[in-house]
Amino acid sequence: MRSQVAIIGAGPSGLLLAHLLQQAGVDAVVLEHRDREYVEGRVRAGVLEQIAVDLMDRIGLGARMHREGLVHEGTNIAHEGEMFRIDMKALTGGSTVMVYGQQEVMKDLFDAAEDRQLKIVFGAEDVQLHDVTGPPYVTWRSGGEAHRLDCDFIAGCDGYHGVSRGSIPEDVLRHYERVYPFGWLGVLAEVPPAAHELIYCNHERGFALASMRSQTRSRYYIQCRLDDRIEDWSDERFWDELCVRLGDKAAAGVVRGPSFEKSIAPLRSFVAEPMRYGKLFLAGDAAHIVPPTGAKGLNLAVSDVIFLSEAIEEFYRERSTAGIDHYSARALARVWKAERFSWWFTGLTHRFPDTGAIERRLQVAELDYIRESKAAQTVLAENYVGLPI
Amino acid sequence: MRSQVAIIGAGPSGLLLAHLLQQAGVDAVVLEHRDREYVEGRVRAGVLEQIAVDLMDRIGLGARMHREGLVHEGTNIAHEGEMFRIDMKALTGGSTVMVYGQQEVMKDLFDAAEDRQLKIVFGAEDVQLHDVTGPPYVTWRSGGEAHRLDCDFIAGCDGYHGVSRGSIPEDVLRHYERVYPFGWLGVLAEVPPAAHELIYCNHERGFALASMRSQTRSRYYIQCRLDDRIEDWSDERFWDELCVRLGDKAAAGVVRGPSFEKSIAPLRSFVAEPMRYGKLFLAGDAAHIVPPTGAKGLNLAVSDVIFLSEAIEEFYRERSTAGIDHYSARALARVWKAERFSWWFTGLTHRFPDTGAIERRLQVAELDYIRESKAAQTVLAENYVGLPI
Repeated sequence: MRSQVAIIGAGPSGLLLAHLLQQAGVDAVVLEHRDREYVEGRVRAGVLEQIAVDLMDRIGLGARMHREGLVHEGTNIAHEGEMFRIDMKALTGGSTVMVYGQQEVMKDLFDAAEDRQLKIVFGAEDVQLHDVTGPPYVTWRSGGEAHRLDCDFIAGCDGYHGVSRGSIPEDVLRHYERVYPFGWLGVLAEVPPAAHELIYCNHERGFALASMRSQTRSRYYIQCRLDDRIEDWSDERFWDELCVRLGDKAAAGVVRGPSFEKSIAPLRSFVAEPMRYGKLFLAGDAAHIVPPTGAKGLNLAVSDVIFLSEAIEEFYRERSTAGIDHYSARALARVWKAERFSWWFTGLTHRFPDTGAIERRLQVAELDYIRESKAAQTVLAENYVGLPI
Repeated sequence: MRSQVAIIGAGPSGLLLAHLLQQAGVDAVVLEHRDREYVEGRVRAGVLEQIAVDLMDRIGLGARMHREGLVHEGTNIAHEGEMFRIDMKALTGGSTVMVYGQQEVMKDLFDAAEDRQLKIVFGAEDVQLHDVTGPPYVTWRSGGEAHRLDCDFIAGCDGYHGVSRGSIPEDVLRHYERVYPFGWLGVLAEVPPAAHELIYCNHERGFALASMRSQTRSRYYIQCRLDDRIEDWSDERFWDELCVRLGDKAAAGVVRGPSFEKSIAPLRSFVAEPMRYGKLFLAGDAAHIVPPTGAKGLNLAVSDVIFLSEAIEEFYRERSTAGIDHYSARALARVWKAERFSWWFTGLTHRFPDTGAIERRLQVAELDYIRESKAAQTVLAENYVGLPI
């Protein structure tokens, strides 16, 4: 088999890239070791920046998003019973975000992939990248048979645990990582959300986030210990703790109901550099992870694939390697700023078990400052809606 | 002896307060265990916020400051050879800072104290505060004799190492402290400054600051190790290291010359709460220390004594304790925001020996972000010129 581009992984990065490349007339094959149901079922991010909304429109898949998604013009910060709003739209000159779950994005991408006959191989086992400095090829097994795909380029869109990053030699790849000393305990419930907009809450007992997937489905998180076990968190205990942290005002809107998804996720800041090695390009979680505070993960995948599709298209259209050569630096410039924001926003809103009393007071002072400063609110707003690409 | 207010310490807090109280017709005595030459000779801060400029005017001591001080409308951030300017005046709607050394401020305050016959006792040894919950009195020794001053209130303006803070019972006083893992090596030289405005520099080898006291006197700092010794830093080594860190562009303006003051200072964030206990009020360094990055120390002393003089004046004028009761909370609200800014600006510009590679990259990402974001520059500017009181 042969294609111009081999895309490893059918998550958001891989499928968005596949749609973009198809639009550009570039031939690509997507290799995914899971099946569609598994990939589509993963509960992940839920807030799209304008660039992600625009990208969905550009690939002709924005209709359901605009119909069912929730446009948010602001977000809320609560601490110790107080709450204030960041008017993102006013502070940024009109930018907003769209609440539309990653599961919905994936459904739209997969449905359209079928209609448009994108080439996706599910259940590709033992995927391996070969000769990534070129000319490269990819091998895998499926149905007991060995396969090989020769290509010009490989897009490593297979996430943090994928094989692509490991195909870059250790002496070339630099890793930057921070693991946070807590996790997020997340719950999905078929109940109306506590408020129209998100509430990020810093409480003495830890962070909480009131979020949603739709007007009838709520998504709540509370900061938990890394050694907490799901089975120790009954629904009742979760709702009680959530309401204590949100405080009377924010908790007043909480509608309790049985959870249908409950999980604990660690928080990590991670960047691998460079994002290009030879004919291999990393995109999305394969190259970088942000803590979920501020919802930048999926949106960074979006900017990566925009940059990468432009670079590849430029190569085939103009036989120029300029875009390809610049891809890593261009993507990383935006990645690091989003890493900084996610790290800062996590630091602002969480309790850090090992820091001293003064750090807690400085955190409260920063929240007080943000509440009173239009400039500080603008910094939060412009990062939240997404920095320019 | 008797006075309405006993002021412990004749540094900036104590003398500014003494002048304000005299203006308000409140009788005060200042007790200082050093002599004038020592206090006036201490090399300290050099950047006055607008509130400090206004206060000097209000007590009728602004003339020389306006004549000799340098108005700065902006400040500069350099990193890795790049430099950008924060246009404070434009970003804050007209605010500026005044470069006028603490030594000059002290000279003006002492000269006027003599003219106005403020009561200052120099060389007061073994100062002790008694019955601070009231009615209080202060004892000391001078010239071999014991003295006692009865008063209504005591203003503890005797700095971090003074006795006042220790007069608040341990079970009442809360301490918050962070000591930074580096120091500042500072040099004064009789040479024109490198640039018209300050340059704050983050370099791989550590922080550097190009500052000045006047158009003919430069003040330079470089981050050093806490165990560095002055004698290991010849002038030549200092100038060489400074120029490396500033980078070619900023270093081009450096005029070398013999240093006439060279010292190493530790960096500390410190707050003691509450700032009032009974009839005792803490002001300035007695209650809080900031790292010097951003020059907030003297300016916090200014807001403290403004709040405190208003409270005391209100007490005598209206026999109301409202101002007195609110003093600690009012002062601390501003203190914590300045602590936050100084801590953040220190974190942005210094190298931290114990942090990982990702923290360094996040720091560079933040500098890149600030260079590109008007909102982020406004945050820096509005804090640098001073938050509203």
